[in-house]
Amino acid sequence: MNSVFMKDITWKEFEERKSRAVILPVGSTEQHSFHLPFCTDSAIAEGISEKLAEKIGGTVMPTLCYGYKSKPMSGGGPLFPGTIDLNGRTLISLAEDILEELCLDGVKLIFVNNAHYENEAFLIEAIDIVSRRHPEVTILESNWWDVLPQSVIDKVFDDVPFPGWALEHAAVTETSLMMYLAPQLVKMDMIPTETGFEPVPYHKYPIVKGMVPESGALASAKGSSAEKGKLITDTAVDEFVKIIERFI
Amino acid sequence: MNSVFMKDITWKEFEERKSRAVILPVGSTEQHSFHLPFCTDSAIAEGISEKLAEKIGGTVMPTLCYGYKSKPMSGGGPLFPGTIDLNGRTLISLAEDILEELCLDGVKLIFVNNAHYENEAFLIEAIDIVSRRHPEVTILESNWWDVLPQSVIDKVFDDVPFPGWALEHAAVTETSLMMYLAPQLVKMDMIPTETGFEPVPYHKYPIVKGMVPESGALASAKGSSAEKGKLITDTAVDEFVKIIERFI
Amino acid sequence: MNSVFMKDITWKEFEERKSRAVILPVGSTEQHSFHLPFCTDSAIAEGISEKLAEKIGGTVMPTLCYGYKSKPMSGGGPLFPGTIDLNGRTLISLAEDILEELCLDGVKLIFVNNAHYENEAFLIEAIDIVSRRHPEVTILESNWWDVLPQSVIDKVFDDVPFPGWALEHAAVTETSLMMYLAPQLVKMDMIPTETGFEPVPYHKYPIVKGMVPESGALASAKGSSAEKGKLITDTAVDEFVKIIERFI
Amino acid sequence: MNSVFMKDITWKEFEERKSRAVILPVGSTEQHSFHLPFCTDSAIAEGISEKLAEKIGGTVMPTLCYGYKSKPMSGGGPLFPGTIDLNGRTLISLAEDILEELCLDGVKLIFVNNAHYENEAFLIEAIDIVSRRHPEVTILESNWWDVLPQSVIDKVFDDVPFPGWALEHAAVTETSLMMYLAPQLVKMDMIPTETGFEPVPYHKYPIVKGMVPESGALASAKGSSAEKGKLITDTAVDEFVKIIERFI
Amino acid sequence: MNSVFMKDITWKEFEERKSRAVILPVGSTEQHSFHLPFCTDSAIAEGISEKLAEKIGGTVMPTLCYGYKSKPMSGGGPLFPGTIDLNGRTLISLAEDILEELCLDGVKLIFVNNAHYENEAFLIEAIDIVSRRHPEVTILESNWWDVLPQSVIDKVFDDVPFPGWALEHAAVTETSLMMYLAPQLVKMDMIPTETGFEPVPYHKYPIVKGMVPESGALASAKGSSAEKGKLITDTAVDEFVKIIERFI
Amino acid sequence: MNSVFMKDITWKEFEERKSRAVILPVGSTEQHSFHLPFCTDSAIAEGISEKLAEKIGGTVMPTLCYGYKSKPMSGGGPLFPGTIDLNGRTLISLAEDILEELCLDGVKLIFVNNAHYENEAFLIEAIDIVSRRHPEVTILESNWWDVLPQSVIDKVFDDVPFPGWALEHAAVTETSLMMYLAPQLVKMDMIPTETGFEPVPYHKYPIVKGMVPESGALASAKGSSAEKGKLITDTAVDEFVKIIERFI
Repeated sequence: MNSVFMKDITWKEFEERKSRAVILPVGSTEQHSFHLPFCTDSAIAEGISEKLAEKIGGTVMPTLCYGYKSKPMSGGGPLFPGTIDLNGRTLISLAEDILEELCLDGVKLIFVNNAHYENEAFLIEAIDIVSRRHPEVTILESNWWDVLPQSVIDKVFDDVPFPGWALEHAAVTETSLMMYLAPQLVKMDMIPTETGFEPVPYHKYPIVKGMVPESGALASAKGSSAEKGKLITDTAVDEFVKIIERFI
Repeated sequence: MNSVFMKDITWKEFEERKSRAVILPVGSTEQHSFHLPFCTDSAIAEGISEKLAEKIGGTVMPTLCYGYKSKPMSGGGPLFPGTIDLNGRTLISLAEDILEELCLDGVKLIFVNNAHYENEAFLIEAIDIVSRRHPEVTILESNWWDVLPQSVIDKVFDDVPFPGWALEHAAVTETSLMMYLAPQLVKMDMIPTETGFEPVPYHKYPIVKGMVPESGALASAKGSSAEKGKLITDTAVDEFVKIIERFI
Repeated sequence: MNSVFMKDITWKEFEERKSRAVILPVGSTEQHSFHLPFCTDSAIAEGISEKLAEKIGGTVMPTLCYGYKSKPMSGGGPLFPGTIDLNGRTLISLAEDILEELCLDGVKLIFVNNAHYENEAFLIEAIDIVSRRHPEVTILESNWWDVLPQSVIDKVFDDVPFPGWALEHAAVTETSLMMYLAPQLVKMDMIPTETGFEPVPYHKYPIVKGMVPESGALASAKGSSAEKGKLITDTAVDEFVKIIERFI
Repeated sequence: MNSVFMKDITWKEFEERKSRAVILPVGSTEQHSFHLPFCTDSAIAEGISEKLAEKIGGTVMPTLCYGYKSKPMSGGGPLFPGTIDLNGRTLISLAEDILEELCLDGVKLIFVNNAHYENEAFLIEAIDIVSRRHPEVTILESNWWDVLPQSVIDKVFDDVPFPGWALEHAAVTETSLMMYLAPQLVKMDMIPTETGFEPVPYHKYPIVKGMVPESGALASAKGSSAEKGKLITDTAVDEFVKIIERFI
Repeated sequence: MNSVFMKDITWKEFEERKSRAVILPVGSTEQHSFHLPFCTDSAIAEGISEKLAEKIGGTVMPTLCYGYKSKPMSGGGPLFPGTIDLNGRTLISLAEDILEELCLDGVKLIFVNNAHYENEAFLIEAIDIVSRRHPEVTILESNWWDVLPQSVIDKVFDDVPFPGWALEHAAVTETSLMMYLAPQLVKMDMIPTETGFEPVPYHKYPIVKGMVPESGALASAKGSSAEKGKLITDTAVDEFVKIIERFI
Repeated sequence: MNSVFMKDITWKEFEERKSRAVILPVGSTEQHSFHLPFCTDSAIAEGISEKLAEKIGGTVMPTLCYGYKSKPMSGGGPLFPGTIDLNGRTLISLAEDILEELCLDGVKLIFVNNAHYENEAFLIEAIDIVSRRHPEVTILESNWWDVLPQSVIDKVFDDVPFPGWALEHAAVTETSLMMYLAPQLVKMDMIPTETGFEPVPYHKYPIVKGMVPESGALASAKGSSAEKGKLITDTAVDEFVKIIERFI
């Protein structure tokens, strides 16, 4: 029984698996309120990638644990100690180098599994740049939330209303996913109650205290459960499999 | 009667207006199907900015007419001749330099009015970088679609269903806006009928022919009208005024 | 009757015109004394480009309205409110991206029409970089002043002595060009009298108040006329046509 | 009992620990012969950092799992599938951003624990750049091999001669460290026998097959043991503690 | 008797001279026809700087021997073997770093003495960037040709007409300067006769053979003499002294 | 008898020598204690390169006289006036541009002769980047210390113990080399006595006074002699010849 994680295998083992999909999980080091750890996005990206790799015989690259800047309207912002914000140019270069190396290694299909919303534009920029040089490689990018059908969203938000994806930071979906994927890191008794956060349709700088709730959560995590986390995980994995199979 | 456009005034006139809001419209040079011109995003950004400036006594900077890369899922992509895609790093630097200069000039409030969705992450990156150096300046970023209340969306999509903002490329809202703001540039007889475009929840590279409809439109523009364009414009202007007034 | 401006046409129309010359006007947002607007360089670049395109059936790209840093010895410098100075690296990247996209689109001849002296070295750098990747495309760069024969210069400076091109900032040639190309933006009653500016054969930093006249003009605009503006424009267009025809 | 890993804690917990040392482990994704996994450098950096943090009450940041380019003379080079080589500029930017964020968070002492030799110059460059902006923060950089006293080296190389640090790639020290820190990832039966590698005192490009042994190991791992790994680990931790205490 | 060259002195000696002017000569490695060596620009920059330093008690920094790209219209272009063209961004960074270090060292006046025309825009860009950070330092930039009064130009061109500065590449002025400053490097018998070069008022890319004369000279060097070289040198030094004295 | 220095020859002469090795000496502008000049590294790189070129009929490029940042543990650090530290990115770009131009010129073998330890990682990065684009060119990098056999080291350190290469800054080897290669620049009476410098196995930032001896020397230069300098030079040249011959 082989590990699906590239970090755990040798170059000889990777050589044999090059023709299969390679998965690059991308997360962040970002505050996730009182009850979830900094690695929340990374752990979700890695956990879902692991299950995806098991299904398709793919290989999971080391997770990118530092991501683009956290924003007040979708992640809490930079004012919480410990949130590490990469500059956009840095994330572009980092993803570009890694993808370039995989292309040079002869990999044929790369799936970038992003779990930190703010990363997306910069990851796609890196993919675009590399893809112009390596049109022979299929590079896909997706995330667990955009592939969820409405029916699954309805099941997850059976007792609280869906606040929109932007506010789902340290809220029901992420908390449920962590309860399923890394329960030992969830502090159930620290879940904040009402956040009272009102999103606004604009960005305002400089970012100052008071723009996000004290807790760092943008919506309530009440109603979270490991079952919901499993439902989201399983659905995302199934959808990712369908996407990848379209291009093999 | 003074022009609100910075390009038309002298430095002496600008000096007197420095204490009021400065508006930076950002558009693109991007295909907009058979019936709308390349400047669609730029003309919308500039047109709305002009009306906003008239209301608040602000000044409109020269419009950024080249934007970030057009994507298949939200703009048609790079395969149409004439679409000019700036690299992400370039747009960051361009916006960064302009904002920096305004800050050095002593401007106190800048409103970045973006009308090309793909620009947003890179504009915000530039704003963040400049804002860390100039916390004394308030920099706001928004766009005409995120500020529309549901009631307005309902009125605009009274006869066709709303396909979601991502597909609103060269469709009802943009066509209506151009019919109101720059009617001489709209080729009503060239509006494509059914696009049959099915969006997918992932990004796939390399981008190849066939990923977007032949026409370059992602959804139908049927039902567009100058009245709807005026409604969107007036609403956006009103909302922008409210946002700006919050910070003066 | 088609517009020569790319911004006003659709991708289908551009596709048909790809084989003809594409013209990229480059200007600036720079103070031009009490009587000329910030857009002076941009309006001149765009106005001459329009007439050139009409003659040769070419297409005019959206004008680059922000240029390289204004210098005391040739443009008044950064101390006047509203002058927006791009960094050199930014202008290189901006021009590089646009030219690259045109090359990828299959354009065969690009004419960069620069009307802000300080831009030149950085535009040429971008051209050189792109040209190494795309030797199949002819890229030309010129400006309206370098192509004027002595006989035309003599006619323009019939009553005031020619101060040299470096001092021709907001002076006779630019004022005449604006009186011809955009008369509504010229404040004839605000033309400063004697500037008393003495140019020096060196650059000195930091730039401080007093290095340029209060008005921002480096030489007098007395004797300017729309006729002179027309003469310069017609001559430049004719010379540009000759240059382009050499390479088609 | 709290985790020393920042990834596992919340922002509130990190806030309380900001005044203590923060440790940044830096590794690589690099081939390590037939018997050690890609994560060898990362696992060593992280494993030693964990024990160091436990001793001094410090916090371990998420490990940088991608490092600078592997070189033939010290790591096997880029020709082995799966080795991911970051460009120097990318690693500088990545480390720069992370260190900058920690400085902005108010951290007072950062210890960069590097376990991939080739990273060092680029990490120091990032440290130097950040340190010029944040002289109030003490930033230290070291590695497990430079701090080992000769007596420990003698004990580790009791039956095979010490080949010099450059050749200690996938050899006795790294294999011993992995046998102690991550024994489940060591394939004892795959340890290559004689490598026959002769180092040369120059760098030659392009890098081609044959410059390094087929196995990817630069020296033999014979004589490795978990005991030796523990000895190295304990010694390095003790030395690191001494270094850090000098600056608190 | 101390050397004026920084390279030849110790840090203690430099420390004592920090309060006096520091001169940075900038040249190129560029073909200079059949009779002048690659170092022509560098040797001229360094030779004039030496005499300037002797007059004012200044210190001459190591000469920048690699410069910006040689252009067909002013230097012969990149097609001659051995011409080394730096990219614009590289020259900006190089000059920026050196000037920054001098500012940090407490130097109060820096004179950049450029002898390769194409360098100028990029040197000024570096100066501008550094000067914004260090307004306490006076940074001057000039060159030997812009400071020559007409009377001197008339004396130098007493038997051949002055072709304009752009064509003065490997022609009368540079040859005369080398005959005075480094006569052992001038191959008098290799001076090409008529060049027949006709300059054009535009830049054309790609650069191809035939755009410049076979010899690499843009105008004839006939009539050159060491006396003329001395006249130019002495005049430039005197003018530079006057410039510097204005700011001490 | 031709000069081996490219700077002294014409493009025609270089054209004839393109097929032979081209040598790029790289030095620094760095304090070298009370008795050696700033150009120590550059003079050594250039002096050895000259003798190497004479032996193999190669050509010596203009020396890079500015190098990467001086570090306390290997060069004295940035605190001594006059030491000019290039940023890592700058040195990478500078070396990259020069090597690229040589490759485009059709040169087949380039030998980078580095005499400032801190440069190495950045030079190799530039070599790697260029080599990926130009695999047809052999690029070698080495330095005088790594090629010395133990027997030579023993002869050089016959009366003082060898302190390790890191401390050999302004000490026995560099002083001996300068006494042989540029004796007029050595101030024998200024050689500091005991330095008392104790190296540490870590890097600490910010760099502050007191981390290196007052003199700037890291080890004593007592026992230096021109004979030792000649021995090192001759040995290095012989070893470099052997390396180059392996690839011709």
